Amino acid sequence: MPALDALRHRLAELSDLSSLARLASWDQQVMMPREGAAVRAHQLAAVDRLTHELATADDLGAWLEELERDGSDLSELDRDIVRVARRDWDRRRRVPAELVGEISRAAAEGQAAWSEAREAVDFAAFTPLLRRNVELAREYAACFPETPRPYDALLDDYDYGLRSERIEALFARLAEGLAPLIAQAAKGPDHLAALEIPVAAQKAAVRSTLLRLGVTDAAWRVDVSAHPFSESLGRNDTRITTRYEDGGLNSLTGALHEFGHSLYERQIAPELERTNLGRGTSMSIHESQSKLWENHVCCNRAFAPVIAAEFAAAGHPFLEPDAIHARLTHVRPSLIRVDADTLTYPLHIVLRFELESALIGGGLEVSDLPAAWNDGMRRLLGIEVPNDGVGVLQDIHWSAGLFGYFPSYALGTVIAAQLWQQLEHEVGSRDEALSAGDVTAIGDWLRERVHRHGRRLDTEPLVEQATGRPITVEPFLAHAATLVGG
Amino acid sequence: MPALDALRHRLAELSDLSSLARLASWDQQVMMPREGAAVRAHQLAAVDRLTHELATADDLGAWLEELERDGSDLSELDRDIVRVARRDWDRRRRVPAELVGEISRAAAEGQAAWSEAREAVDFAAFTPLLRRNVELAREYAACFPETPRPYDALLDDYDYGLRSERIEALFARLAEGLAPLIAQAAKGPDHLAALEIPVAAQKAAVRSTLLRLGVTDAAWRVDVSAHPFSESLGRNDTRITTRYEDGGLNSLTGALHEFGHSLYERQIAPELERTNLGRGTSMSIHESQSKLWENHVCCNRAFAPVIAAEFAAAGHPFLEPDAIHARLTHVRPSLIRVDADTLTYPLHIVLRFELESALIGGGLEVSDLPAAWNDGMRRLLGIEVPNDGVGVLQDIHWSAGLFGYFPSYALGTVIAAQLWQQLEHEVGSRDEALSAGDVTAIGDWLRERVHRHGRRLDTEPLVEQATGRPITVEPFLAHAATLVGG
Repeated sequence: MPALDALRHRLAELSDLSSLARLASWDQQVMMPREGAAVRAHQLAAVDRLTHELATADDLGAWLEELERDGSDLSELDRDIVRVARRDWDRRRRVPAELVGEISRAAAEGQAAWSEAREAVDFAAFTPLLRRNVELAREYAACFPETPRPYDALLDDYDYGLRSERIEALFARLAEGLAPLIAQAAKGPDHLAALEIPVAAQKAAVRSTLLRLGVTDAAWRVDVSAHPFSESLGRNDTRITTRYEDGGLNSLTGALHEFGHSLYERQIAPELERTNLGRGTSMSIHESQSKLWENHVCCNRAFAPVIAAEFAAAGHPFLEPDAIHARLTHVRPSLIRVDADTLTYPLHIVLRFELESALIGGGLEVSDLPAAWNDGMRRLLGIEVPNDGVGVLQDIHWSAGLFGYFPSYALGTVIAAQLWQQLEHEVGSRDEALSAGDVTAIGDWLRERVHRHGRRLDTEPLVEQATGRPITVEPFLAHAATLVGG
Repeated sequence: MPALDALRHRLAELSDLSSLARLASWDQQVMMPREGAAVRAHQLAAVDRLTHELATADDLGAWLEELERDGSDLSELDRDIVRVARRDWDRRRRVPAELVGEISRAAAEGQAAWSEAREAVDFAAFTPLLRRNVELAREYAACFPETPRPYDALLDDYDYGLRSERIEALFARLAEGLAPLIAQAAKGPDHLAALEIPVAAQKAAVRSTLLRLGVTDAAWRVDVSAHPFSESLGRNDTRITTRYEDGGLNSLTGALHEFGHSLYERQIAPELERTNLGRGTSMSIHESQSKLWENHVCCNRAFAPVIAAEFAAAGHPFLEPDAIHARLTHVRPSLIRVDADTLTYPLHIVLRFELESALIGGGLEVSDLPAAWNDGMRRLLGIEVPNDGVGVLQDIHWSAGLFGYFPSYALGTVIAAQLWQQLEHEVGSRDEALSAGDVTAIGDWLRERVHRHGRRLDTEPLVEQATGRPITVEPFLAHAATLVGG
C-alpha cells in the first residue's frame, strides 16, 4: 500500500522536525548563551516553514484521498492515523499563509509591547497591539465558519472538539462550588510563612523524590530554567526543569507537575511513536496529568511523610508532615495566577475565559478590559486590584495572540480530580502506597486509561473512556472540600 | 533580481538546517540522556534528507543558470555566493542518492565492526567491512573523473582544490625535516611525569584562561564531553568542550585548541552569515586555527607565566613556567596519535596519508594494511607496534568511511606555523604581549587575514593571500627546531 507508506514516512518526518524544534526551544530556555537568540529565531522559523510546507503539501492530500477511497483493509491504528492526518491537513490548509505570517509577527510585536507596558504599568500603551491580536484571532477563527462560535475555532487548536458553551457550564458550576469553600478557608490559620528551606536541600530533595518516581539519568534530564517546563524529545529523552528560589516547596511541586506532563508522553503506546498520534492529545488532558501529580500525589496528606523524609535526608531539620501538608494546601485569594493555590487558581482561569471569549465574540472592547478584569477579581475572588501590573497585564498569553489556551489550565485541574477519583475507585485508596512512596499502580493505571492512546481519543471522549462519565467538576469540588474541611 | 533573492533565501534555509543539525549533534554529545540515541538518529537523518533535497533541487540549479547567464550587475560578494553555490550543487548532484545511502549504512556498520575488532584486537574481523568502505569510497571518487587521482576527489570534500601530489611533496619534506629533530629530542630529559594537577584546579584555570582570551558567558558555553570538540551554532552562540582526567595540562591545551576553531567561526565577516560562505573554508584551515592557539599561544614559552598564574589563582601550588613549558613541548615518539606531541604528531598523519592514498589508489590491499602500518611506524617514528589495537586499529576514521580527512591534521599544524611566522613578522614578536596575557593583536590579525573570508578563499589561495607564499613546511620545521634546541 504505497500511499500508506508515503503517508507514514511523511508523518515520521514531521514528527522528527517537531522534535528538533522542541530541542531548539529547550536549548534556548536552558542552555543557550543569550546572545544566540537572534540566530535561534531564524533556525526555529526555518523549521516552522519547512514543517508547514510538508504538512500542507498536495501530495499528502492525495495520499489521504486514496486511503479514504478504499481504506477497508487498513488496520484500526492506520484508520486513526488517516483520520487525524486528514483533520490536521484540512485545518492547516484552511488558513492562508499570509495570515499565519501576520499572526506570527503580531505575536512577536505584541509580546514586546506587553513587556514594556507591564514594566511601565501602562495598559493604554498596550491597547493597539492587543486589539490587533484580537482582530487576527477573529480572522483566524473565520477560517472555520462551521464552529458554533468563533471562539470554538480557537479552542479546537488546544482541545479539539470542546465547545465554549460546555466550558461555560462547567466553569459556572466550578465558581459556584468554590465560592463557599474559599470563604471557609479564609477563616483558617495562615501557614504561608512556615518554611525556609535552603536551595541545596531543595535540590537534593527534588532529585531524590524524582528518582523515587522512576526518573533515571539514562533517560531524563532535570535542569533549571526561569519558567519550569518539560519537553519530550523522544520516548526515552525526557527533559524537565524546575526553579529554586523561594525557600519553600514550589521547586518540588513544580518538578512533580512537570513529571506528570513527561510521564504522559513517555507512556504513549510505542507503536504510535513517530506517527501523528504519538503526542499528548490536548492541552487539557496534558494539564490533567501534571495536576494529578501535583495536586493528588505531591499535595496528598499520605505523601507528606515521604517529602519530610526526603528533606531530612537532604540535611534539612525535620519538617512535620502536617506542616508540609498545611503549607502545600494553604488557601488564600491572591492577585497573581501563577502564585495562586489549588482552590483559587481555577477562578483566575474562569475570569480569563470570560474575558477572552467576550473579546473574540465581540461583547467586550479591548479598552474596557481593565475595568472588566478588576470587576471579575472582585466578584470571583473578593479582592481589589491595586494596578494593572498585578491585574490585566500579568499574563503574556494574549500579547502573543494565544486565545483559547487558558481554559485548559482549569479543565486540567478538574479532569485530574475526576481521574484520581476513578483511579482510587478502581485500584483502592492510594494512602498506604503513597505513604511508602510507591506510585507504581498510579503510573500503570494512567498508562492504561490515559497515556497509551496518544491522540487517538480527544479530550472529552478520553475522559469518558477513562472514567465512564463526561467531564464533571464534582470530584474536584469534593477534593477541595477535604482541603478546607480538614 | 528574484533569482538572487530565491537563491539567498534557500542558502539561508540550508544554513539554518545545518545549525540545527549541529545543535542536535552537540546536544547528543554533551547533554542527551543516553537512551535518547535511537530517536536522535532519526531526527538527524530527517534533517540530512531534507537538506539533501533542498540542496540538490532543480529550482536551485535554475536560479544559478539564470544568475550565471547575466551576472554582470552582481556584487563581488554575490558572485562568490553564486560560484560556491554552483560548485556545491554540482558536487552533490553528481553522487547518486543510493550511493549516499550505501556509504552511510557501510559507515555505521563499519564503526560497529571496528569497535568490536579493536576491543578484541582482531584486524581480520574488521577486514570485510573496511574493504567495503574502501570500495564505496572509490565509487564515490569515480563520480568525479576529472580529478587527477581518485583520492583527490575525496580530498575535495575537506580541502577543495588540494591535490595529493602536492601533499606528498609537503609531507616528504616534513618527514625529512622532522627526523633529525626527533632524534635530537629523544636524547633530552623526560618531563612527562612532572605534573599532577587536581581536576578542580584545572577547571578553574581553564575557565579563567578562556575569559582572558575573550570568552563570555553571554555568547559561549564551555562544557565537558568524552571527546573535546566545538560547534558554532551562530556567530554569537559558540560552544566548546574539553575533558578533565589526566592530572596534566591536556584540558587546557584542548580548550585552547577548541577556542581556535571557534574564534575562526565567530570572526567570519557578518555579511556572510546565513549564506553558503559563512563557515570555515576547509578542514586544514580550521585545524590551522586550532593549532595556532594550541602550539603558538598555549605552548609558547612567553605564555607559560600566565598559565602559572592561572593555576596559582586556582589554588594549585606554584608551578614554574619553565616546568610548564617543558611539559607542553616535550617530545617522545609514541604509539597513539591523539596522545602524540607537537613534533611526532605530523608523522602519525604522514603514515595515515600514505596508507589511505594507497588503499584508494589500489596500491595497497586491506589485508596488507597491518604490516604496512607497522613498517611505517618503524620507518617514520622508529618504534615497534606490539599489537594492532595500539596500531592500525586505533583510529575510527576509516571504519566510518572517512578517507581524505587525515591530511588536514598535519596540514593544519604546518599552516599554523606559517601564519604565526607571518603574524609576528607583521605585528612584531608576541612575547611581551603574551607574557601579559594579551592576545588582542593575534585575534585581530587572524580576523583580517584568515577568518573574515569564510569560504570565499580555498585552502591554498587563503594561505597565499595571508602569507604571500604557497603552503610551506619550513616555518613549522623552524618552530620545531626551537623546541628541541632550547
